[in-house]
Amino acid sequence: MIVNNLKHIALFKGCGPAFFDELEAHAQLQSYQKGKIMFINGEPAERFYFIKSGWVKLFRETLDGTQAVVDILTAGHIFGETSIFEDDAYPYSAEIVGSSQIMVLPNSVLKTEIENNNKLALNMLSFMARCRRQQDKEIEHLSIQNASQRIGCFLLRLTNQESAGAVTIRLPYDKTLVASRLGMQPETFSRALAKLRDKTGIRVNGATVEVDNLEQLSIYSCAACSSEFPCKNLMVAE
Amino acid sequence: MIVNNLKHIALFKGCGPAFFDELEAHAQLQSYQKGKIMFINGEPAERFYFIKSGWVKLFRETLDGTQAVVDILTAGHIFGETSIFEDDAYPYSAEIVGSSQIMVLPNSVLKTEIENNNKLALNMLSFMARCRRQQDKEIEHLSIQNASQRIGCFLLRLTNQESAGAVTIRLPYDKTLVASRLGMQPETFSRALAKLRDKTGIRVNGATVEVDNLEQLSIYSCAACSSEFPCKNLMVAE
Repeated sequence: MIVNNLKHIALFKGCGPAFFDELEAHAQLQSYQKGKIMFINGEPAERFYFIKSGWVKLFRETLDGTQAVVDILTAGHIFGETSIFEDDAYPYSAEIVGSSQIMVLPNSVLKTEIENNNKLALNMLSFMARCRRQQDKEIEHLSIQNASQRIGCFLLRLTNQESAGAVTIRLPYDKTLVASRLGMQPETFSRALAKLRDKTGIRVNGATVEVDNLEQLSIYSCAACSSEFPCKNLMVAE
Repeated sequence: MIVNNLKHIALFKGCGPAFFDELEAHAQLQSYQKGKIMFINGEPAERFYFIKSGWVKLFRETLDGTQAVVDILTAGHIFGETSIFEDDAYPYSAEIVGSSQIMVLPNSVLKTEIENNNKLALNMLSFMARCRRQQDKEIEHLSIQNASQRIGCFLLRLTNQESAGAVTIRLPYDKTLVASRLGMQPETFSRALAKLRDKTGIRVNGATVEVDNLEQLSIYSCAACSSEFPCKNLMVAE
């Protein structure tokens, strides 16, 4: 079954075989190249998507042409599904930013199941609550962390937070994307990264970041955050 | 019945009399003065709250003592209810910021009803989707609007957006609170307000803002926003 991967994600726990059969009947597995636009903000939303591999950027564009990145997602994530609560229109645009294998699925099947299966509705509520908490945190950070602290926070979420001392972090996507994910202009990002280097002694080599002292990085970044480090209950940045 | 007000809010549409009776059996109507802390971020959450009148600030504090305002709510809003999806702990602190009449209600009754009444679970999903959209917008604005545009956006949401030309806006709470709601230091807020005055010709007299030309304000503020003015589907800022 194409949809076997879906059976393992928390959202669909407790859904019966009839639901998966119905999804399977309409599911398509597709490969997409970098640059492909999957849908545009406001378009009628007939499908939701499961990322088997690759990277997808969710974004919106302002009237003056600036792009606001909503999220950058990778394998195991779904997107487009919240449109079923948004008058069946996509609340953002989606673009493939790294070659991806994507499972294309019908929103109508999801919608019917949520209306009839309280277990799925409750799973969806937990999922939405997690998203809300994540967004809450993001708003907090945008309000009170400086740009260098925000980059530090992004890096910390890419680590195994239980480790101590020296770690090597690989950036999940290129620096331009990291900057836009953090809502920064490239120049702001460069300046803030340089400052973070001065403050915490990290070393950046291409897509690799060497941290000699994880604690130093967390003391600097987490001072302007209401959660304690290591941070619990948060989806990782990637 | 104390809980009669609840019957009219969208969240509880489709809930039966047994649910309201059960809420009524535990409901208390209380008056609180400005400054009262209702609960602290992370505390066990046994109750949720409905605001009959007044103003409540939801916030979190960072390790270095800075306050991040999550929201400022008024009559007709509930708070504390999402804790039922957060391991029964409050995800923020709540403080009374203007004398308030508050209905105190048991989370356990809400939780049981959501688990058993799919209609309520679906209402809650719509409600969470609306919150998510609102937060999404806030993240977008924090990333790409400048401080003056954010104040302009806040003012626009207080108007009847269908009106044109001259309008008078009354700030819903004092300027210090408006600043913290927008995640700005008081000095940043003052500077940004002065700039907004220069750019759009608005006049501020205490808690009143005179706008000669609503279109000029929206052209300035909404240039850095992905929604068109008037903005649909958004909860108002207050």
